Amino acid sequence: MTATTSVRLRNPYLVFVGDTTNPVDAKTGAGIVQWRRELVAGQLRFAGNQLDLGVPDMSISEAREAGVQSLLLGVAPVGGGISDAWVDSFCEAASAGLDIVSGLHRPLESVPGLAAAAQGSGARLINVRMAPAGLPVGNGAPRSGRRVLMVGTDCAVGKKYSALALTRAMRERGLSASFRATGQTGIMIAGEGIPIDTVVADFIAGAAEVVSPANAAAHWDVIEGQGSLFHPAYSGVSLGLLHGSQPDAIVACHDASRQTVHGCPHYSVPSVADCIEHNLCCARLTSPEVACVGVSINTSGLPAGSRRDYLDRLTAELGLPCVDPIIDGCERIVDFMAAHFDAVTDKKPATGDEGAGCAT
Amino acid sequence: MTATTSVRLRNPYLVFVGDTTNPVDAKTGAGIVQWRRELVAGQLRFAGNQLDLGVPDMSISEAREAGVQSLLLGVAPVGGGISDAWVDSFCEAASAGLDIVSGLHRPLESVPGLAAAAQGSGARLINVRMAPAGLPVGNGAPRSGRRVLMVGTDCAVGKKYSALALTRAMRERGLSASFRATGQTGIMIAGEGIPIDTVVADFIAGAAEVVSPANAAAHWDVIEGQGSLFHPAYSGVSLGLLHGSQPDAIVACHDASRQTVHGCPHYSVPSVADCIEHNLCCARLTSPEVACVGVSINTSGLPAGSRRDYLDRLTAELGLPCVDPIIDGCERIVDFMAAHFDAVTDKKPATGDEGAGCAT
Repeated sequence: MTATTSVRLRNPYLVFVGDTTNPVDAKTGAGIVQWRRELVAGQLRFAGNQLDLGVPDMSISEAREAGVQSLLLGVAPVGGGISDAWVDSFCEAASAGLDIVSGLHRPLESVPGLAAAAQGSGARLINVRMAPAGLPVGNGAPRSGRRVLMVGTDCAVGKKYSALALTRAMRERGLSASFRATGQTGIMIAGEGIPIDTVVADFIAGAAEVVSPANAAAHWDVIEGQGSLFHPAYSGVSLGLLHGSQPDAIVACHDASRQTVHGCPHYSVPSVADCIEHNLCCARLTSPEVACVGVSINTSGLPAGSRRDYLDRLTAELGLPCVDPIIDGCERIVDFMAAHFDAVTDKKPATGDEGAGCAT
Repeated sequence: MTATTSVRLRNPYLVFVGDTTNPVDAKTGAGIVQWRRELVAGQLRFAGNQLDLGVPDMSISEAREAGVQSLLLGVAPVGGGISDAWVDSFCEAASAGLDIVSGLHRPLESVPGLAAAAQGSGARLINVRMAPAGLPVGNGAPRSGRRVLMVGTDCAVGKKYSALALTRAMRERGLSASFRATGQTGIMIAGEGIPIDTVVADFIAGAAEVVSPANAAAHWDVIEGQGSLFHPAYSGVSLGLLHGSQPDAIVACHDASRQTVHGCPHYSVPSVADCIEHNLCCARLTSPEVACVGVSINTSGLPAGSRRDYLDRLTAELGLPCVDPIIDGCERIVDFMAAHFDAVTDKKPATGDEGAGCAT
């Protein structure tokens, strides 16, 4: 990504927990530790807080001595606000030269005294939920490298987790693979990316093209999805991301216990088969040879005894590896990809004749 | 539309032409005069300018005496800038209490002296290209009233013109119909609307729901389309608009001489039949009974002698009224709509079972 359209976080990180005691509110911090442990120097907890991310406790002065470059807000309370109790720590960190990185709605610039503290030391205030300036409109031109995009039967069904788990499994297999983030938590884990749902509508596909740029022919970008083509509020985000990503492959993500679409009780969640078919038919506009290479299911809402049956039945129905990445990992999806895609082949440029989507 | 999410222009209008001599650059002003002649008091041309919109010349003081409420920028030069030569006129108009209305990229607030002039008189500076604040996310809940949306094989194929011509034909038939604008020129013609392609991605469908709100059961909103599902840069805008509009009907718009997608030479324009099929299959998510009721073709790029044959062949192929609205008007589309839709029927609420889009 170019400097004009993205920021790259500086590591190592100090993850801010503060006075947050609810593990659900600290999911961002837990995700950073889970997926990027090697970049995390420590956590900053207020005195007496028992919530533990499992990394060393560290004060800001200790962090500075340890070479920490950024304070990452690892917490996201309901409402997305910034507690007054946190301000002194943020200002101390910024004064010490640490970048402050937030995925919350409220801009860091609005925190009293923080902009001045950062200006004095040269620290950056980075709001990863805000789209960068200067994004291009999409151009749809074929680009080199391979890309696999997570798509969903709904939003909030585990697309980010699936992308991260798949990236890890591909790397363990020796493949060249990069997780590409399209949402705020993903960006904090990846260290860069674009929050695609905050981009102005005309630039969705262009932003997706920037997120997963041309790369070596054998390299895989594993792209975090957003929303769902079946969500009446967010389908536009998902289609722009699908077209801009030019995916060679998609992985369908689904929550086995979800019945109606998130926030829209009038709408049933589609079947996994329908989700795959519709995404493939739309994706062919910019990627005529796109294929589905696997299905990632969150089975945590099913009775423990029925999860294996559910996955086995779906595998038989679809003829695709269907896994719960938390139970099974993503190795079987990597197996399928290895069989489907030859080692390294030059990509054919897309031709206009193949660009008519579903209707062809 | 509510006050928080849209502005309503105050008429009558004085249309600003200034020193613009190229008719192509004055398309906005010509459109306002063509479709809203009754709201236009006059035009403001600089001395010696021969470009004539066909309405009375008027100075700002004359306009004020005539009760004019708004100065509408009827010109859009290449690049979208505001000429220094226009500034004195804008400031004079704002000082006289006229709202200044612009569809250009540059915000009116950046014109030296203009904000102060407007503040002194209470005039408003209205940038119709900017999305309003406070838009909701879409909810997909069924709403009353009927809606027909223009969809395109590409962008810039005549969707706005088609919507305006269809609205006029429906009204002449005695139907209750409103043109609903989704782009800056359409907003200046309609006097209200939302520039859908400038909305933040998460709010596209929500904006579309606001543009065409619940209405009387027999009322038709005729919604200006944007972009195309087949455009690799703008498909997200088009899908969000399609889902948010919940259209009972679509009209497919096409430029008969367009070969490749606007700005994307790698992509062929789809056939009209493919365009209809793909739009219907996507639209069924929020409007299960949606139907295509006609095709609007810009035949101006064809040899004059072949236009009738082209339209007749397409009519036979599709079994739908295919018209060039400039040659034929839209009466045959209104005929088809009258036959397809009963006089007034209560709408069925959409059920989740029918919400699986294409793949069902």
